[in-house]
Amino acid sequence: MHSDLWLEEKFEDFLGLKFKVEKVLFSGKSDFQTVDVVETKGHGKMLLNDGLVMVTERDEFAYHDMITHVPLFVHPAPKNVLIIGGGDGGTAREVLRHQSVEKCTMVEIDAMVVEACRQHIPQTAKDLDHEKLQLIIGDGVEFVKQTTEKFDVIIVDSTDPIGPAQPLFGEAFYQDVFNCLSADGIVVSQGESSWYAMEIQQSLLKVLNAVFPQSYLYSFSNLTYPGGLWSFTFASKQYHPVADFDATRVAASGLDFQYYNQALHSAAFALPNFVKKGLAGLIDNS
Amino acid sequence: MHSDLWLEEKFEDFLGLKFKVEKVLFSGKSDFQTVDVVETKGHGKMLLNDGLVMVTERDEFAYHDMITHVPLFVHPAPKNVLIIGGGDGGTAREVLRHQSVEKCTMVEIDAMVVEACRQHIPQTAKDLDHEKLQLIIGDGVEFVKQTTEKFDVIIVDSTDPIGPAQPLFGEAFYQDVFNCLSADGIVVSQGESSWYAMEIQQSLLKVLNAVFPQSYLYSFSNLTYPGGLWSFTFASKQYHPVADFDATRVAASGLDFQYYNQALHSAAFALPNFVKKGLAGLIDNS
Repeated sequence: MHSDLWLEEKFEDFLGLKFKVEKVLFSGKSDFQTVDVVETKGHGKMLLNDGLVMVTERDEFAYHDMITHVPLFVHPAPKNVLIIGGGDGGTAREVLRHQSVEKCTMVEIDAMVVEACRQHIPQTAKDLDHEKLQLIIGDGVEFVKQTTEKFDVIIVDSTDPIGPAQPLFGEAFYQDVFNCLSADGIVVSQGESSWYAMEIQQSLLKVLNAVFPQSYLYSFSNLTYPGGLWSFTFASKQYHPVADFDATRVAASGLDFQYYNQALHSAAFALPNFVKKGLAGLIDNS
Repeated sequence: MHSDLWLEEKFEDFLGLKFKVEKVLFSGKSDFQTVDVVETKGHGKMLLNDGLVMVTERDEFAYHDMITHVPLFVHPAPKNVLIIGGGDGGTAREVLRHQSVEKCTMVEIDAMVVEACRQHIPQTAKDLDHEKLQLIIGDGVEFVKQTTEKFDVIIVDSTDPIGPAQPLFGEAFYQDVFNCLSADGIVVSQGESSWYAMEIQQSLLKVLNAVFPQSYLYSFSNLTYPGGLWSFTFASKQYHPVADFDATRVAASGLDFQYYNQALHSAAFALPNFVKKGLAGLIDNS
């Protein structure tokens, strides 16, 4: 007899997302959070932190394409890239596909996430031993405070602003991010859902506005997060994410993507009116 | 004591969407399907047909804006509009906001859906007695076979291709739709989810390709349908949905939308690569 195993992610007190589980592959509790990897029916392997779905094999390409290729195709020559978080390895995998990148530093606070993904989700973790990747297990907040390096692109691939990721949504952190970005640097950050978490988006964008001359929001469709319509923030010292985007570089790269393409790049910055109204004064999207 | 009431929409055998229910407002069984209206916590009032979420007050504007305003702003002067289905009234409500529209005919097969929405969801049903609206309770398949009218825009606002809506996904129906469209007519249809139902999209687009010279898919974010990234098909005798879209007409209309805007119009036709690849040869999206 097989047991009928389901996991349920509750969102506030009015929504639940249930996924059929075939097998629990890993369950642990780190200093920061619970970490689970399960084999699901319908979504492949799935990583959960504190019971929240982080990554599934079925749709992770959407998130990782959009958090990575948008800033890396806006910056004309990204050589030195920093990832804060991103323990599953999917963002690093996509960053390392760009020929211009000479070095990618990834600072993940939770070794257990990295190890669980190395062992069970090679689809995302496969490039964590790449020669251009420096993987640091440590606190990203401390890292950007102390580093003397300058980065062309910083990607804040964080969990929600509860638990270990909370400081990653604050102004002190982004002041340090600004300081360790090159003069034409870009920071892109996981930006939550416009349907269900606009207050978090407003709060994060207020922080970015206080630090950066330009702030934007762009969206994509995430299959397994509550709300579906998910966002990244794009804060920039110099480049406009659409006007300064040279679309010919996408074809010239020779890269083939499962989600991202040059038309979608600009389209992602076209936001529905309820988002534009909710974030009025906080975003420079035209 | 309050009971802890939830409704759950199962998708295949691997996904469940659970919504907190405050109160059941209506439950009936028509000749075609079960019809329920519930007051939810978090999504306002919700209509369900055969246990599947059709409409919620919280996000219905996204669906109704995108199924309506895209074709009505591509066609330069839509005067005579036909809606097949759309029993909740939200599509008719949006069609009737366009000054150019002289007459809107709506053919809904299920009187119980219309009555339940009239009584419990005035947000969508509020214009069902509009002087320009002719509401026919009947079979849309038969209507397009027999009518001698010509329509500028036809909107197929149907449920999934199971139950009463099944013939609305077939070639015989679309041949009749073609015949009762004006020489520059457009038909837009509910087109399911690229994440979970690409086979239905492929099947529908094959039908449209067999009948129409141009077929496209466009997407938007639906909050309460499984998959989030939802689609409409756009089949056309003459107009290209982006090249022939005169964006100045949106501002000139004086209309204000919660979801739709002129930038989003074109952006909606920029599809992720996995959609473009899955529908290769079936869509004319560039």
